[in-house]
Parts: sequence; C-alpha cells; structure tokens
Amino acid sequence: MKVARFQIDGEISFGILDRAENGEGVELVELMADPIVAGYDTTGRRLKLEEVRLLAPVIPRSKVVCVGKNYADHIAEMAGVTGGETPAEPVLFLKPNTSVIGPGDVIVRPEISERVEHEGELAMVIGAVAKNVSEEEALSYVFGFTCANDVTARDLQIADGQWTRGKGFDTFCPLGPVIETDPDLSDARIVTRVNGEVRQEGSTAQLIHSLAKIVAFASQAFTLLPGDVILTGTPAGVGLLEAGDTVEVEIEGIGILRNPVRDAAAAE
Amino acid sequence: MKVARFQIDGEISFGILDRAENGEGVELVELMADPIVAGYDTTGRRLKLEEVRLLAPVIPRSKVVCVGKNYADHIAEMAGVTGGETPAEPVLFLKPNTSVIGPGDVIVRPEISERVEHEGELAMVIGAVAKNVSEEEALSYVFGFTCANDVTARDLQIADGQWTRGKGFDTFCPLGPVIETDPDLSDARIVTRVNGEVRQEGSTAQLIHSLAKIVAFASQAFTLLPGDVILTGTPAGVGLLEAGDTVEVEIEGIGILRNPVRDAAAAE
Repeated sequence: MKVARFQIDGEISFGILDRAENGEGVELVELMADPIVAGYDTTGRRLKLEEVRLLAPVIPRSKVVCVGKNYADHIAEMAGVTGGETPAEPVLFLKPNTSVIGPGDVIVRPEISERVEHEGELAMVIGAVAKNVSEEEALSYVFGFTCANDVTARDLQIADGQWTRGKGFDTFCPLGPVIETDPDLSDARIVTRVNGEVRQEGSTAQLIHSLAKIVAFASQAFTLLPGDVILTGTPAGVGLLEAGDTVEVEIEGIGILRNPVRDAAAAE
Repeated sequence: MKVARFQIDGEISFGILDRAENGEGVELVELMADPIVAGYDTTGRRLKLEEVRLLAPVIPRSKVVCVGKNYADHIAEMAGVTGGETPAEPVLFLKPNTSVIGPGDVIVRPEISERVEHEGELAMVIGAVAKNVSEEEALSYVFGFTCANDVTARDLQIADGQWTRGKGFDTFCPLGPVIETDPDLSDARIVTRVNGEVRQEGSTAQLIHSLAKIVAFASQAFTLLPGDVILTGTPAGVGLLEAGDTVEVEIEGIGILRNPVRDAAAAE
C-alpha cells in the first residue's frame, strides 16, 4: 500500500494510492488522518493525483537518524574523507526535522558551501514507539519505506569532522514521494539520477547492516517515536549538485523522489 | 524572570517564580500557556514550589543543537580524544529531543557504555524562528537561559568518531530547573558537582565563541524554531558518573539542575 501526504485547497491531508475508478491512471483515496497514528478510515473523497500537491509523506516528530558507511562501494570511494574501514557497528548521525522537504521541493545550495552532493537512500518510517527492540522484532516497528536524499555539503562535512552541520541544512533531507508499507526489499534497486543521467546505482541486497539490525541498534540509543525516519546509507557514486539540476532517487517498488536544485540567492 | 514548566494533579502547566505573598519562600504564578509561544497571561492561581513537580522547562520541538570545544581548558583536557586544536568556527552536533529530562529525573547509564560522563553547560532556549540571523540581532531570538548537562558515553563517542550516539541516549540531556529570561551572563559561574564535590568550574566569560556568534552560526545551517535549545559547551573537569551519584549543574543567576544517576537495569 502506498501512503501519501498532500495539500489541496490549503489543507494538509493523507491518502492511499489506488487505481482510478475509470481505469485511467492513479487516484488518492483520502484518509481521515495520518495513518501512522490513526489507521485507515477514509473520508469517502477520491482525488486525482494532478489535483493535489504531494508533500513529504512524514514530518519526523523527533529525529531523522542516518547511517553512514553501509555500502562497501561507497566506503571505498569515501576512503579519503571518512577513512576506508568498514565499521563493525552502524555509524549513526542525526539530521534535524527542519531539513525535511517533499517531492518537487527545491534543494537549496547554501552560500557557505562550494560542494553540495546527493546521496540517494532507502528510508524507514517508524510506526510505533521502539526502545531496545531485538533484531527479530525490529521490522514490526517500521510503518513503511520511502525514498530519501541525504544531501551533504561535503566541504563542510570534511572541515567540521562532525557530519551534523554539513548534512543538516534546511532542504537537505528530501523524502517521498510516498510511503510503501510492504515493498519487497530483498533486492530492490536504488538509482540516483542527475538530469536523467545515472549517478548512483545499488540494491538493498548490498546493505552491510540489515534494516532490522539498524532499527534494533538505533533503538538501543534513542527511543524511536512514530514518525521518526531512519536513512539507511548510500551506494557509491555520490557527486555534485549544481544550480539548475534535477536530482531523482528511485527505489524499485516505492517510486521516484524528484527535486530541483537552486542556489540560496535564487531560491529566496 | 524565571519561567518553570511543572506538573500538578497530572496536568502540565507553566509558571513564573515569585516571592511568596506571605514573604516566606518562593511561589509559582501559573500561566495560561507556554510563554515561549503564548505570552504571560496568568490563570490567577498561585502554587507553592513544594506542591508541584518541576519538569524540563522546555521540550524542543525540533532539535537540541550542541557546541563542542568552546572552553580552552576543556579542549586541552580532551586533546587525546578530539584533538587539541581550537576550531575557528563552532563545532555543532545534535542531541534528539528524546534525550531531554527535567530536574530530579534519573540519568540512566546504558548497559553498553562503561564510561558515562557529565558536562555541565549553559543552554539557550530559542524564542522565535531564526534563519541566517546576524550576530548583532542573534540574542533577540533567545527566549532565555537554563542549565544543561551534556551527558556523554565517552567510550562510545570515541569508538564511533561521530558524537551523536554517545551523546544522544535517552536521559542524556537534563535541562532546568527554570528558564531565566534575563540573567547577567557577562561573567556567570558554571559549576558542576558530583555528590557535592566540585568537578567542573568555569565562567561564561571564558566562552571561545560568544552566545550571539553561536546562534548566528547555527542559524546559517538550521532554521531554529521556538523551543529549540542550544548547549554552549563545557569547561574542563568532565568526569565519570556512577550509579548512585547525584550530579548538579549550577549557573549563577539561573539555578541548580540536580539529577540522580542509575544503571539501566535498576532504572527499569
């Protein structure tokens, strides 16, 4: 099932993607409230996708947890920046919820960075309070999965040593277009394109730390709240985003997250 | 003015500390709502401090921003862990809002750390949306100031390289006891005691990066929201917290933040 958060007539609403009743295209079945906390009661209204503006499918209440160094080929390409070793445990960092934007929203390159880069990633959306959960039960706390872009000011990440600032700027966490509650992630392709050209290509089969391991490990440190988001790391091929670019993160079975890129001065 | 958040009869409320009407001790003048967003209208009720349970004076809506390496003597003592150099710019990291606890709440030592340490700090509470603000206007976005303890699992901080996990555990961000909206911070003493013994002692006069600089710098990266909290770094003398300890952070003109320490198994 694909869950969307959207805006229509100035109101924010939630819906499920469904085949159109006339058989042509896709419609949204509107829900009474956020299904992460309120289930799937419907309002009875059906909307065409073209009528609405899709938003980030979730705004984290508390945190976006990110995992660094979770694909071997990306660890190798980043050896000069973060060291080439594969960590025994996931390396965690946080992005603030103020960095979250939705599909179609503009990624803003800050004036103080010369090197803003894309990192296409699979993201998990937490559905229930999770603390010290086991790997065996971990995925039962996940509401669903979406596409994410762990946008990074690489020059600031390197200068600071700590990754928080370089990865935490406003607009640096595009999420969407929808949350798929039950994708097949045994070997799902993750592709990142810039202006249509493939820059990153990987598969969920290549994750060093499994999705269940990541949830269990993060829940040892932080209580995970419904609506929290966990980004699971990026494959090789990270690279520059320039003003005027369009970047896409596509995950098989979920969808395509597409965002234009602008300089700060032009975006204001 | 000293603002408190407290619980009475199961309800959460806000108040201002005032001299008792009979001249004996301190009372709370109850407010209609959180003064950070709703001003200072009162309910007409006055409460004795002993009647209520003080809570963390704020729960950040979005983030706790922290500054590392902001006192020269602490940089020197941590040279083996984080390098001995003084950074030209503040080093930022985030603690999640799930780490926040209030005065009297228990700091829980996680089972997976052998080395939990205290870091007494001055914290700023943001009062208005701040993005790209100048140093000159920065402090006008600060609602007030409170005491904080940047509790740290030092062994995990060192093992991870990234500081997020070691500093982000549940209970690792005690805040309180109150928010002072107008303290004299030109040379305010910050003292951290464990079981009554002074462990850290410093002054706001020793901050390498000023309070205004920190707000301005952080607002370049993240939009700061009302209720966000910024910890400003710790003086020398960080050290171990053991189960059974009581740790106090006292800042001149604000108050004393006191928390007991327990092991995870005992705290459940």
